[in-house]
Amino acid sequence: MKVSVQVNSYYNNEMSKKLLELCRDITGLDAVPGFDDDAEIILFSGRPVPGKKTKFMQSLSAGVNHLDFSKIPDNIIIASNADAYSIPVAETAIGLMLAWARKICISNYNIHNNNYKRLDYKEYVSLYNKSLGILGYGGIGRRTALIAKSFGMNIYAYSRSYKNDGISSYMEPEDIMKKSDFVLISLPLTKETANSINDKMLSLFRGLAIINVGRAGVVDRNSMLNFLRNHNDKYYLTDVWWNEPIINENIPDNVIITPHSAGMSDNIYQPAVAAIENIKNYINGKPKNIVKRSDYI
Amino acid sequence: MKVSVQVNSYYNNEMSKKLLELCRDITGLDAVPGFDDDAEIILFSGRPVPGKKTKFMQSLSAGVNHLDFSKIPDNIIIASNADAYSIPVAETAIGLMLAWARKICISNYNIHNNNYKRLDYKEYVSLYNKSLGILGYGGIGRRTALIAKSFGMNIYAYSRSYKNDGISSYMEPEDIMKKSDFVLISLPLTKETANSINDKMLSLFRGLAIINVGRAGVVDRNSMLNFLRNHNDKYYLTDVWWNEPIINENIPDNVIITPHSAGMSDNIYQPAVAAIENIKNYINGKPKNIVKRSDYI
Repeated sequence: MKVSVQVNSYYNNEMSKKLLELCRDITGLDAVPGFDDDAEIILFSGRPVPGKKTKFMQSLSAGVNHLDFSKIPDNIIIASNADAYSIPVAETAIGLMLAWARKICISNYNIHNNNYKRLDYKEYVSLYNKSLGILGYGGIGRRTALIAKSFGMNIYAYSRSYKNDGISSYMEPEDIMKKSDFVLISLPLTKETANSINDKMLSLFRGLAIINVGRAGVVDRNSMLNFLRNHNDKYYLTDVWWNEPIINENIPDNVIITPHSAGMSDNIYQPAVAAIENIKNYINGKPKNIVKRSDYI
Repeated sequence: MKVSVQVNSYYNNEMSKKLLELCRDITGLDAVPGFDDDAEIILFSGRPVPGKKTKFMQSLSAGVNHLDFSKIPDNIIIASNADAYSIPVAETAIGLMLAWARKICISNYNIHNNNYKRLDYKEYVSLYNKSLGILGYGGIGRRTALIAKSFGMNIYAYSRSYKNDGISSYMEPEDIMKKSDFVLISLPLTKETANSINDKMLSLFRGLAIINVGRAGVVDRNSMLNFLRNHNDKYYLTDVWWNEPIINENIPDNVIITPHSAGMSDNIYQPAVAAIENIKNYINGKPKNIVKRSDYI
Protein backbone atom coordinates (compact mmCIF):
# COMPACT_ATOMS: atom_id res chain seq x y z
CA MET A 1 0.00 0.00 0.00
CA LYS A 2 1.12 3.50 -0.83
CA VAL A 3 0.01 6.97 0.32
CA SER A 4 -0.20 9.84 -2.17
CA VAL A 5 0.29 13.14 -0.31
CA GLN A 6 -1.52 15.90 -2.24
CA VAL A 7 -1.34 19.28 -0.50
CA ASN A 8 -2.04 22.88 -1.45
CA SER A 9 0.20 25.93 -1.07
CA TYR A 10 -0.51 26.28 2.66
CA TYR A 11 2.13 23.56 3.03
CA ASN A 12 5.53 24.92 2.03
CA ASN A 13 8.47 22.67 1.02
CA GLU A 14 9.67 22.11 4.56
CA MET A 15 6.17 21.23 5.78
CA SER A 16 5.48 18.93 2.81
CA LYS A 17 8.70 17.04 3.47
CA LYS A 18 7.81 16.69 7.14
CA LEU A 19 4.33 15.38 6.16
CA LEU A 20 5.88 12.61 4.07
CA GLU A 21 8.20 11.68 6.93
CA LEU A 22 5.37 11.63 9.49
CA CYS A 23 3.27 9.56 7.11
CA ARG A 24 6.02 6.94 6.70
CA ASP A 25 6.88 6.90 10.41
CA ILE A 26 3.33 6.58 11.70
CA THR A 27 1.79 4.24 9.09
CA GLY A 28 4.88 2.28 8.02
CA LEU A 29 3.72 2.72 4.40
CA ASP A 30 5.50 4.27 1.45
CA ALA A 31 4.45 7.91 1.00
CA VAL A 32 4.93 9.82 -2.25
CA PRO A 33 4.43 13.51 -2.98
CA GLY A 34 1.62 14.50 -5.38
CA PHE A 35 -0.71 12.44 -7.57
CA ASP A 36 0.01 8.71 -7.93
CA ASP A 37 -2.34 6.47 -9.89
CA ASP A 38 -1.28 3.41 -7.88
CA ALA A 39 -1.85 4.85 -4.37
CA GLU A 40 -4.70 3.27 -2.41
CA ILE A 41 -4.66 6.10 0.12
CA ILE A 42 -4.59 9.88 -0.35
CA LEU A 43 -3.66 12.40 2.37
CA PHE A 44 -4.82 15.79 1.15
CA SER A 45 -5.51 19.45 1.63
CA GLY A 46 -7.36 21.49 -1.01
CA ARG A 47 -8.87 19.52 -3.90
CA PRO A 48 -7.24 16.10 -4.38
CA VAL A 49 -7.33 13.97 -7.54
CA PRO A 50 -8.19 10.31 -6.89
CA GLY A 51 -6.23 7.64 -8.79
CA LYS A 52 -7.37 4.33 -10.32
CA LYS A 53 -6.73 2.40 -7.10
CA THR A 54 -7.83 5.00 -4.52
CA LYS A 55 -9.98 3.55 -1.72
CA PHE A 56 -9.48 6.02 1.16
CA MET A 57 -8.98 9.80 1.22
CA GLN A 58 -7.95 11.51 4.45
CA SER A 59 -8.37 15.28 4.78
CA LEU A 60 -5.84 17.43 6.62
CA SER A 61 -8.36 20.26 7.08
CA ALA A 62 -11.20 19.81 9.56
CA GLY A 63 -13.95 20.68 7.01
CA VAL A 64 -14.51 18.99 3.63
CA ASN A 65 -17.22 21.32 2.28
CA HIS A 66 -14.84 22.55 -0.46
CA LEU A 67 -14.56 19.10 -2.13
CA ASP A 68 -16.02 18.45 -5.56
CA PHE A 69 -17.84 15.25 -4.60
CA SER A 70 -18.93 14.60 -8.19
CA LYS A 71 -15.28 13.90 -9.08
CA ILE A 72 -14.79 11.37 -6.30
CA PRO A 73 -16.25 7.92 -7.10
CA ASP A 74 -18.81 6.69 -4.55
CA ASN A 75 -16.77 3.66 -3.50
CA ILE A 76 -14.01 5.88 -2.07
CA ILE A 77 -14.23 6.50 1.67
CA ILE A 78 -13.52 10.12 2.62
CA ALA A 79 -12.51 11.08 6.17
CA SER A 80 -12.47 14.60 7.59
CA ASN A 81 -9.99 15.80 10.21
CA ALA A 82 -12.72 16.88 12.63
CA ASP A 83 -11.48 17.85 16.09
CA ALA A 84 -7.80 18.09 15.05
CA TYR A 85 -7.88 21.89 15.33
CA SER A 86 -10.17 22.18 18.35
CA ILE A 87 -7.52 23.41 20.78
CA PRO A 88 -6.35 26.55 18.90
CA VAL A 89 -9.85 27.22 17.49
CA ALA A 90 -11.38 27.20 20.98
CA GLU A 91 -8.60 29.53 22.17
CA THR A 92 -9.43 31.90 19.33
CA ALA A 93 -13.16 31.81 20.13
CA ILE A 94 -12.47 32.75 23.76
CA GLY A 95 -9.86 35.29 22.64
CA LEU A 96 -12.33 37.03 20.30
CA MET A 97 -14.92 37.14 23.08
CA LEU A 98 -12.45 38.68 25.56
CA ALA A 99 -10.94 41.08 22.99
CA TRP A 100 -14.44 42.49 22.60
CA ALA A 101 -15.70 42.18 26.21
CA ARG A 102 -12.58 43.71 27.76
CA LYS A 103 -12.22 46.28 24.93
CA ILE A 104 -8.64 45.21 24.28
CA CYS A 105 -8.23 45.94 20.54
CA ILE A 106 -9.91 49.35 20.63
CA SER A 107 -8.01 50.41 23.79
CA ASN A 108 -4.68 49.25 22.42
CA TYR A 109 -5.32 51.11 19.17
CA ASN A 110 -6.31 54.31 20.98
CA ILE A 111 -3.36 54.33 23.36
CA HIS A 112 -0.83 53.56 20.61
CA ASN A 113 -2.29 56.60 18.84
CA ASN A 114 -1.71 58.94 21.79
CA ASN A 115 -5.32 58.77 22.90
CA TYR A 116 -5.25 57.37 26.43
CA LYS A 117 -8.88 57.01 27.39
CA ARG A 118 -11.16 54.81 29.39
CA LEU A 119 -14.62 54.02 28.12
CA ASP A 120 -17.65 54.08 30.39
CA TYR A 121 -17.41 51.26 32.98
CA LYS A 122 -20.53 49.58 31.57
CA GLU A 123 -18.63 48.96 28.32
CA TYR A 124 -16.23 46.57 30.08
CA VAL A 125 -18.20 43.36 30.07
CA SER A 126 -17.34 40.52 32.45
CA LEU A 127 -17.95 36.97 31.20
CA TYR A 128 -18.75 35.80 34.73
CA ASN A 129 -22.35 34.61 35.05
CA LYS A 130 -23.03 35.41 31.38
CA SER A 131 -24.44 32.70 29.12
CA LEU A 132 -22.75 31.15 26.11
CA GLY A 133 -24.95 29.29 23.63
CA ILE A 134 -23.12 26.92 21.30
CA LEU A 135 -24.49 25.92 17.90
CA GLY A 136 -22.58 22.79 16.84
CA TYR A 137 -21.30 20.85 19.81
CA GLY A 138 -18.46 18.87 18.25
CA GLY A 139 -14.80 19.02 19.22
CA ILE A 140 -14.55 22.82 18.96
CA GLY A 141 -17.82 23.49 20.75
CA ARG A 142 -17.01 21.13 23.61
CA ARG A 143 -13.47 22.46 24.04
CA THR A 144 -14.77 26.06 24.12
CA ALA A 145 -17.45 25.08 26.63
CA LEU A 146 -14.88 23.53 28.96
CA ILE A 147 -12.85 26.76 29.02
CA ALA A 148 -15.89 29.08 29.18
CA LYS A 149 -17.11 27.14 32.21
CA SER A 150 -13.91 28.07 34.07
CA PHE A 151 -14.82 31.75 33.54
CA GLY A 152 -18.10 31.09 35.37
CA MET A 153 -20.24 31.15 32.22
CA ASN A 154 -23.47 29.16 31.84
CA ILE A 155 -23.37 26.95 28.75
CA TYR A 156 -26.26 25.98 26.46
CA ALA A 157 -25.53 23.73 23.49
CA TYR A 158 -27.18 22.30 20.40
CA SER A 159 -26.09 19.49 18.11
CA ARG A 160 -27.92 16.70 16.26
CA SER A 161 -26.14 14.14 18.41
CA TYR A 162 -26.07 16.03 21.71
CA LYS A 163 -24.97 14.04 24.73
CA ASN A 164 -25.05 15.47 28.23
CA ASP A 165 -21.49 16.08 29.42
CA GLY A 166 -22.06 17.84 32.74
CA ILE A 167 -20.76 21.10 31.27
CA SER A 168 -23.62 22.30 29.06
CA SER A 169 -27.38 21.88 28.96
CA TYR A 170 -29.23 21.07 25.74
CA MET A 171 -31.21 23.80 24.02
CA GLU A 172 -32.91 24.16 20.61
CA PRO A 173 -31.17 26.62 18.22
CA GLU A 174 -34.01 29.18 18.39
CA ASP A 175 -33.87 29.22 22.19
CA ILE A 176 -30.11 29.56 22.09
CA MET A 177 -30.52 32.71 19.97
CA LYS A 178 -33.16 34.07 22.37
CA LYS A 179 -31.48 33.32 25.69
CA SER A 180 -27.70 33.60 25.24
CA ASP A 181 -25.50 36.61 25.94
CA PHE A 182 -22.96 35.15 23.52
CA VAL A 183 -23.67 32.68 20.69
CA LEU A 184 -20.82 30.58 19.30
CA ILE A 185 -21.21 29.13 15.81
CA SER A 186 -19.04 26.01 15.48
CA LEU A 187 -21.09 24.09 12.90
CA PRO A 188 -19.70 22.27 9.87
CA LEU A 189 -20.86 23.75 6.55
CA THR A 190 -23.31 21.25 5.07
CA LYS A 191 -26.36 21.62 2.83
CA GLU A 192 -28.46 21.66 6.02
CA THR A 193 -26.43 24.34 7.86
CA ALA A 194 -25.68 26.61 4.87
CA ASN A 195 -27.23 30.06 5.46
CA SER A 196 -29.02 28.66 8.53
CA ILE A 197 -28.17 31.77 10.59
CA ASN A 198 -30.62 33.93 8.66
CA ASP A 199 -32.94 36.92 9.24
CA LYS A 200 -35.31 34.82 11.30
CA MET A 201 -32.61 33.44 13.60
CA LEU A 202 -30.88 36.82 13.97
CA SER A 203 -34.18 38.53 14.82
CA LEU A 204 -34.36 36.31 17.93
CA PHE A 205 -30.98 37.42 19.26
CA ARG A 206 -31.10 39.61 22.38
CA GLY A 207 -27.49 39.12 23.49
CA LEU A 208 -24.20 40.94 23.08
CA ALA A 209 -22.14 39.19 20.40
CA ILE A 210 -22.16 36.29 17.94
CA ILE A 211 -18.89 34.42 17.43
CA ASN A 212 -18.12 32.38 14.30
CA VAL A 213 -15.12 30.06 14.21
CA GLY A 214 -16.76 27.64 11.76
CA ARG A 215 -17.43 28.51 8.15
CA ALA A 216 -18.64 31.87 6.79
CA GLY A 217 -21.40 30.27 4.71
CA VAL A 218 -23.27 28.96 7.75
CA VAL A 219 -24.35 32.58 8.18
CA ASP A 220 -26.46 34.24 5.49
CA ARG A 221 -24.38 37.15 4.24
CA ASN A 222 -27.11 39.73 3.65
CA SER A 223 -28.94 38.84 6.86
CA MET A 224 -25.82 39.39 8.94
CA LEU A 225 -24.78 42.60 7.17
CA ASN A 226 -28.27 44.02 7.70
CA PHE A 227 -28.32 42.88 11.29
CA LEU A 228 -24.98 44.59 12.02
CA ARG A 229 -26.11 47.78 10.28
CA ASN A 230 -29.35 47.91 12.28
CA HIS A 231 -27.84 46.97 15.67
CA ASN A 232 -24.59 48.83 16.11
CA ASP A 233 -24.45 47.78 19.76
CA LYS A 234 -24.28 44.08 18.82
CA TYR A 235 -21.06 42.51 17.60
CA TYR A 236 -19.94 39.82 15.16
CA LEU A 237 -16.64 38.28 16.26
CA THR A 238 -15.48 36.09 13.45
CA ASP A 239 -12.58 34.14 12.05
CA VAL A 240 -14.31 33.74 8.68
CA TRP A 241 -15.84 36.00 6.03
CA TRP A 242 -17.76 35.36 2.84
CA ASN A 243 -15.48 35.03 -0.16
CA GLU A 244 -12.30 35.45 1.93
CA PRO A 245 -9.51 36.29 1.18
CA ILE A 246 -11.26 38.66 -1.26
CA ILE A 247 -13.45 40.92 0.87
CA ASN A 248 -16.17 42.52 -1.25
CA GLU A 249 -17.63 44.96 1.27
CA ASN A 250 -16.50 47.35 3.99
CA ILE A 251 -16.25 45.40 7.21
CA PRO A 252 -18.65 47.09 9.67
CA ASP A 253 -17.20 48.71 12.81
CA ASN A 254 -19.09 46.24 15.01
CA VAL A 255 -16.99 43.34 13.72
CA ILE A 256 -13.77 41.93 15.16
CA ILE A 257 -12.19 39.66 12.57
CA THR A 258 -9.22 37.32 12.18
CA PRO A 259 -8.03 35.86 8.82
CA HIS A 260 -9.27 32.24 9.08
CA SER A 261 -6.33 31.66 11.38
CA ALA A 262 -8.22 30.13 14.31
CA GLY A 263 -6.85 26.66 13.64
CA MET A 264 -3.26 27.77 13.04
CA SER A 265 -0.74 27.23 15.78
CA ASP A 266 2.90 26.79 16.65
CA ASN A 267 2.03 23.13 17.31
CA ILE A 268 2.16 22.87 13.50
CA TYR A 269 2.15 19.13 12.97
CA GLN A 270 -0.40 18.17 15.61
CA PRO A 271 -3.36 18.23 13.15
CA ALA A 272 -1.29 16.32 10.55
CA VAL A 273 -0.44 13.66 13.12
CA ALA A 274 -4.17 13.32 13.88
CA ALA A 275 -4.94 12.85 10.18
CA ILE A 276 -2.15 10.29 9.70
CA GLU A 277 -3.20 8.39 12.82
CA ASN A 278 -6.58 8.02 11.12
CA ILE A 279 -4.87 6.50 8.07
CA LYS A 280 -3.52 3.91 10.50
CA ASN A 281 -7.08 3.47 11.78
CA TYR A 282 -8.15 2.82 8.17
CA ILE A 283 -5.41 0.22 7.69
CA ASN A 284 -6.64 -1.45 10.88
CA GLY A 285 -10.22 -1.38 9.58
CA LYS A 286 -11.50 1.33 11.96
CA PRO A 287 -11.30 4.77 10.30
CA LYS A 288 -12.98 7.66 12.18
CA ASN A 289 -14.61 10.87 10.94
CA ILE A 290 -16.13 9.21 7.85
CA VAL A 291 -17.83 11.88 5.71
CA LYS A 292 -21.55 11.35 5.06
CA ARG A 293 -21.81 12.50 1.45
CA SER A 294 -25.54 13.16 1.82
CA ASP A 295 -24.67 16.03 4.19
CA TYR A 296 -23.07 17.81 1.24
CA ILE A 297 -24.87 16.75 -2.00
CA MET B 1 -21.98 54.90 64.26
CA LYS B 2 -21.81 56.73 60.99
CA VAL B 3 -20.05 56.09 57.67
CA SER B 4 -18.46 58.96 55.73
CA VAL B 5 -18.38 58.06 52.03
CA GLN B 6 -15.47 59.90 50.38
CA VAL B 7 -15.05 59.05 46.70
CA ASN B 8 -13.16 60.48 43.76
CA SER B 9 -14.43 61.42 40.32
CA TYR B 10 -14.53 57.81 39.10
CA TYR B 11 -17.85 57.66 40.96
CA ASN B 12 -20.40 59.87 39.22
CA ASN B 13 -23.56 61.19 40.94
CA GLU B 14 -25.63 58.12 40.20
CA MET B 15 -22.91 55.77 41.45
CA SER B 16 -22.25 57.86 44.59
CA LYS B 17 -25.96 57.79 45.46
CA LYS B 18 -26.04 54.04 44.97
CA LEU B 19 -22.96 53.64 47.21
CA LEU B 20 -24.73 55.48 50.06
CA GLU B 21 -27.80 53.28 49.61
CA LEU B 22 -25.77 50.06 49.58
CA CYS B 23 -23.87 51.23 52.64
CA ARG B 24 -27.08 51.86 54.57
CA ASP B 25 -28.73 48.63 53.39
CA ILE B 26 -25.79 46.33 54.11
CA THR B 27 -24.47 47.83 57.37
CA GLY B 28 -27.66 49.30 58.82
CA LEU B 29 -25.62 52.44 59.66
CA ASP B 30 -26.19 56.03 58.64
CA ALA B 31 -24.06 56.93 55.61
CA VAL B 32 -23.23 60.50 54.63
CA PRO B 33 -21.54 61.83 51.50
CA GLY B 34 -18.09 63.44 51.86
CA PHE B 35 -16.02 64.39 54.92
CA ASP B 36 -17.70 64.15 58.33
CA ASP B 37 -15.72 64.83 61.52
CA ASP B 38 -18.05 62.61 63.55
CA ALA B 39 -17.89 59.50 61.37
CA GLU B 40 -16.14 56.50 62.94
CA ILE B 41 -15.92 54.74 59.58
CA ILE B 42 -14.77 56.01 56.16
CA LEU B 43 -15.53 54.26 52.86
CA PHE B 44 -13.20 55.77 50.28
CA SER B 45 -11.61 55.88 46.88
CA GLY B 46 -8.70 58.23 46.11
CA ARG B 47 -7.22 60.10 49.11
CA PRO B 48 -9.61 60.29 52.07
CA VAL B 49 -9.42 62.77 54.96
CA PRO B 50 -9.84 61.16 58.39
CA GLY B 51 -12.01 62.94 60.97
CA LYS B 52 -11.55 63.31 64.74
CA LYS B 53 -13.43 60.10 65.50
CA THR B 54 -12.25 57.92 62.61
CA LYS B 55 -11.29 54.38 63.65
CA PHE B 56 -11.69 52.35 60.44
CA MET B 57 -11.08 53.23 56.81
CA GLN B 58 -12.27 50.88 54.07
CA SER B 59 -10.86 51.24 50.55
CA LEU B 60 -13.01 50.70 47.46
CA SER B 61 -9.94 50.14 45.27
CA ALA B 62 -7.98 46.92 45.63
CA GLY B 63 -4.62 48.68 46.14
CA VAL B 64 -3.83 51.31 48.76
CA ASN B 65 -0.32 52.28 47.59
CA HIS B 66 -1.57 55.79 46.67
CA LEU B 67 -2.47 56.70 50.28
CA ASP B 68 -0.51 59.35 52.18
CA PHE B 69 0.03 57.25 55.30
CA SER B 70 1.68 60.17 57.15
CA LYS B 71 -1.72 61.92 57.24
CA ILE B 72 -3.54 58.91 58.71
CA PRO B 73 -2.99 58.49 62.49
CA ASP B 74 -1.53 55.11 63.48
CA ASN B 75 -4.53 54.09 65.57
CA ILE B 76 -6.79 54.02 62.50
CA ILE B 77 -7.25 50.58 60.92
CA ILE B 78 -7.06 50.69 57.12
CA ALA B 79 -8.54 47.87 55.02
CA SER B 80 -7.86 47.30 51.33
CA ASN B 81 -10.41 45.82 48.93
CA ALA B 82 -8.10 42.98 47.85
CA ASP B 83 -9.75 40.33 45.70
CA ALA B 84 -12.87 42.42 44.94
CA TYR B 85 -11.78 42.95 41.32
CA SER B 86 -10.22 39.53 40.74
CA ILE B 87 -12.89 38.29 38.32
CA PRO B 88 -12.65 41.02 35.65
CA VAL B 89 -8.89 41.47 36.19
CA ALA B 90 -8.23 37.76 35.59
CA GLU B 91 -10.43 37.94 32.47
CA THR B 92 -8.32 40.84 31.22
CA ALA B 93 -5.05 39.00 31.93
CA ILE B 94 -6.24 35.99 29.89
CA GLY B 95 -7.69 38.32 27.24
CA LEU B 96 -4.36 40.16 26.81
CA MET B 97 -2.55 36.84 26.52
CA LEU B 98 -4.95 35.55 23.83
CA ALA B 99 -5.09 38.88 21.96
CA TRP B 100 -1.33 38.52 21.54
CA ALA B 101 -1.07 34.72 21.13
CA ARG B 102 -3.87 34.47 18.55
CA LYS B 103 -2.82 37.77 16.87
CA ILE B 104 -6.32 39.21 17.24
CA CYS B 105 -5.66 42.97 17.49
CA ILE B 106 -3.11 43.10 14.65
CA SER B 107 -5.29 40.92 12.37
CA ASN B 108 -8.43 42.92 13.09
CA TYR B 109 -6.57 46.17 12.38
CA ASN B 110 -5.13 44.84 9.12
CA ILE B 111 -8.40 43.47 7.78
CA HIS B 112 -10.37 46.60 8.70
CA ASN B 113 -7.74 48.48 6.68
CA ASN B 114 -8.24 46.37 3.54
CA ASN B 115 -5.20 44.25 4.20
CA TYR B 116 -6.46 40.68 4.51
CA LYS B 117 -3.40 38.66 5.40
CA ARG B 118 -2.37 35.68 7.42
CA LEU B 119 0.92 35.69 9.29
CA ASP B 120 3.24 32.70 9.27
CA TYR B 121 1.62 29.77 11.13
CA LYS B 122 4.36 29.83 13.79
CA GLU B 123 3.15 33.31 14.85
CA TYR B 124 -0.17 31.87 16.06
CA VAL B 125 0.73 30.63 19.51
CA SER B 126 -1.40 28.08 21.32
CA LEU B 127 -1.58 28.32 25.12
CA TYR B 128 -1.97 24.55 25.40
CA ASN B 129 0.97 22.97 27.24
CA LYS B 130 2.66 26.36 27.65
CA SER B 131 3.69 27.51 31.13
CA LEU B 132 2.34 30.49 33.03
CA GLY B 133 4.40 31.79 35.95
CA ILE B 134 2.53 34.01 38.39
CA LEU B 135 4.29 36.59 40.59
CA GLY B 136 1.84 37.47 43.37
CA TYR B 137 -0.59 34.66 44.08
CA GLY B 138 -3.46 36.53 45.72
CA GLY B 139 -7.03 36.72 44.48
CA ILE B 140 -6.11 37.82 40.96
CA GLY B 141 -3.27 35.34 40.57
CA ARG B 142 -5.34 32.43 41.80
CA ARG B 143 -8.35 33.31 39.65
CA THR B 144 -6.12 33.62 36.55
CA ALA B 145 -4.46 30.29 37.39
CA LEU B 146 -7.83 28.53 37.59
CA ILE B 147 -8.80 29.73 34.11
CA ALA B 148 -5.34 29.18 32.58
CA LYS B 149 -5.44 25.59 33.83
CA SER B 150 -8.57 24.97 31.74
CA PHE B 151 -6.54 25.97 28.65
CA GLY B 152 -4.08 23.18 29.50
CA MET B 153 -1.35 25.51 30.79
CA ASN B 154 1.16 24.51 33.48
CA ILE B 155 1.12 26.96 36.37
CA TYR B 156 4.03 28.09 38.56
CA ALA B 157 3.37 30.60 41.31
CA TYR B 158 5.18 32.71 43.87
CA SER B 159 3.87 34.58 46.89
CA ARG B 160 5.19 35.21 50.39
CA SER B 161 2.32 33.19 51.82
CA TYR B 162 2.05 30.50 49.11
CA LYS B 163 -0.21 27.58 49.92
CA ASN B 164 -0.51 24.59 47.61
CA ASP B 165 -3.92 24.63 45.93
CA GLY B 166 -3.63 21.73 43.49
CA ILE B 167 -3.57 24.17 40.55
CA SER B 168 -0.06 25.63 40.68
CA SER B 169 3.34 24.56 41.94
CA TYR B 170 5.54 26.87 44.01
CA MET B 171 8.55 28.48 42.37
CA GLU B 172 11.00 31.25 43.35
CA PRO B 173 10.63 34.50 41.33
CA GLU B 174 13.98 34.05 39.53
CA ASP B 175 13.01 30.54 38.41
CA ILE B 176 9.62 31.81 37.27
CA MET B 177 11.39 34.31 35.02
CA LYS B 178 13.70 31.58 33.66
CA LYS B 179 11.18 28.81 33.09
CA SER B 180 7.85 30.39 32.09
CA ASP B 181 6.52 30.98 28.58
CA PHE B 182 4.28 33.69 30.06
CA VAL B 183 4.84 35.61 33.30
CA LEU B 184 1.90 37.29 35.02
CA ILE B 185 2.63 40.15 37.42
CA SER B 186 -0.21 40.44 39.94
CA LEU B 187 1.71 41.85 42.90
CA PRO B 188 0.57 44.71 45.12
CA LEU B 189 2.82 47.79 44.93
CA THR B 190 4.70 47.93 48.22
CA LYS B 191 8.14 49.21 49.17
CA GLU B 192 9.40 45.63 48.72
CA THR B 193 7.88 45.06 45.27
CA ALA B 194 8.50 48.55 43.79
CA ASN B 195 10.81 48.27 40.75
CA SER B 196 11.39 44.60 41.62
CA ILE B 197 11.04 43.56 37.96
CA ASN B 198 14.38 45.11 37.03
CA ASP B 199 17.26 44.52 34.60
CA LYS B 200 18.40 41.48 36.52
CA MET B 201 14.96 39.82 36.56
CA LEU B 202 14.26 40.67 32.90
CA SER B 203 17.64 39.27 31.83
CA LEU B 204 16.47 35.86 33.07
CA PHE B 205 13.33 35.82 30.92
CA ARG B 206 13.39 33.31 28.02
CA GLY B 207 9.63 33.21 27.37
CA LEU B 208 7.17 34.93 25.04
CA ALA B 209 5.37 37.68 26.96
CA ILE B 210 5.10 39.37 30.35
CA ILE B 211 1.63 40.42 31.51
CA ASN B 212 1.03 43.14 34.10
CA VAL B 213 -2.42 43.60 35.64
CA GLY B 214 -1.04 44.91 38.94
CA ARG B 215 0.65 48.28 39.27
CA ALA B 216 3.04 49.89 36.79
CA GLY B 217 5.61 50.71 39.47
CA VAL B 218 6.30 47.06 40.29
CA VAL B 219 8.25 47.10 37.01
CA ASP B 220 11.29 49.34 36.67
CA ARG B 221 10.47 51.72 33.84
CA ASN B 222 13.90 52.02 32.19
CA SER B 223 14.63 48.31 32.56
CA MET B 224 11.41 47.37 30.77
CA LEU B 225 11.77 49.99 28.03
CA ASN B 226 15.34 48.79 27.33
CA PHE B 227 14.23 45.17 27.41
CA LEU B 228 11.45 45.80 24.87
CA ARG B 229 13.82 47.77 22.62
CA ASN B 230 16.42 44.99 22.69
CA HIS B 231 13.98 42.08 22.27
CA ASN B 232 11.39 42.97 19.69
CA ASP B 233 10.13 39.38 19.62
CA LYS B 234 9.12 39.55 23.29
CA TYR B 235 5.95 41.30 24.38
CA TYR B 236 4.68 43.36 27.31
CA LEU B 237 0.91 42.94 27.72
CA THR B 238 -0.17 45.46 30.28
CA ASP B 239 -3.12 47.19 31.84
CA VAL B 240 -0.88 49.77 33.53
CA TRP B 241 1.79 52.27 32.50
CA TRP B 242 4.10 54.55 34.43
CA ASN B 243 2.58 57.97 35.04
CA GLU B 244 -0.73 57.00 33.34
CA PRO B 245 -2.92 58.67 32.13
CA ILE B 246 -0.06 60.95 31.00
CA ILE B 247 2.15 58.80 28.79
CA ASN B 248 5.62 60.32 28.49
CA GLU B 249 7.12 58.05 25.85
CA ASN B 250 6.16 56.34 22.62
CA ILE B 251 4.63 52.99 23.48
CA PRO B 252 6.81 50.36 21.75
CA ASP B 253 5.23 48.17 19.06
CA ASN B 254 5.77 45.05 21.16
CA VAL B 255 3.27 46.27 23.76
CA ILE B 256 -0.45 45.56 23.96
CA ILE B 257 -2.00 47.97 26.46
CA THR B 258 -5.36 48.71 28.09
CA PRO B 259 -6.13 51.88 30.09
CA HIS B 260 -6.08 50.54 33.68
CA SER B 261 -9.51 49.11 32.94
CA ALA B 262 -8.85 45.51 33.99
CA GLY B 263 -10.98 45.84 37.10
CA MET B 264 -13.85 47.67 35.43
CA SER B 265 -16.98 45.71 34.61
CA ASP B 266 -20.68 45.85 33.96
CA ASN B 267 -21.10 44.22 37.40
CA ILE B 268 -20.45 47.76 38.66
CA TYR B 269 -21.37 47.46 42.31
CA GLN B 270 -19.88 44.03 43.03
CA PRO B 271 -16.55 45.49 44.33
CA ALA B 272 -18.44 48.12 46.38
CA VAL B 273 -20.57 45.41 47.96
CA ALA B 274 -17.37 43.53 48.90
CA ALA B 275 -15.96 46.69 50.54
CA ILE B 276 -19.18 47.40 52.44
CA GLU B 277 -19.46 43.77 53.58
CA ASN B 278 -16.03 44.31 55.16
CA ILE B 279 -17.38 47.34 57.05
CA LYS B 280 -19.93 44.92 58.48
CA ASN B 281 -17.03 42.58 59.34
CA TYR B 282 -15.41 45.51 61.19
CA ILE B 283 -18.61 46.21 63.15
CA ASN B 284 -18.65 42.52 64.09
CA GLY B 285 -15.01 42.72 65.18
CA LYS B 286 -13.57 40.69 62.28
CA PRO B 287 -12.41 43.02 59.47
CA LYS B 288 -10.43 41.39 56.64
CA ASN B 289 -7.69 42.76 54.35
CA ILE B 290 -6.06 44.85 57.09
CA VAL B 291 -3.24 46.91 55.59
CA LYS B 292 0.21 46.34 57.10
CA ARG B 293 1.60 49.87 57.07
CA SER B 294 5.18 48.61 57.21
CA ASP B 295 4.67 47.25 53.66
CA TYR B 296 4.35 50.84 52.45
CA ILE B 297 6.43 53.13 54.75
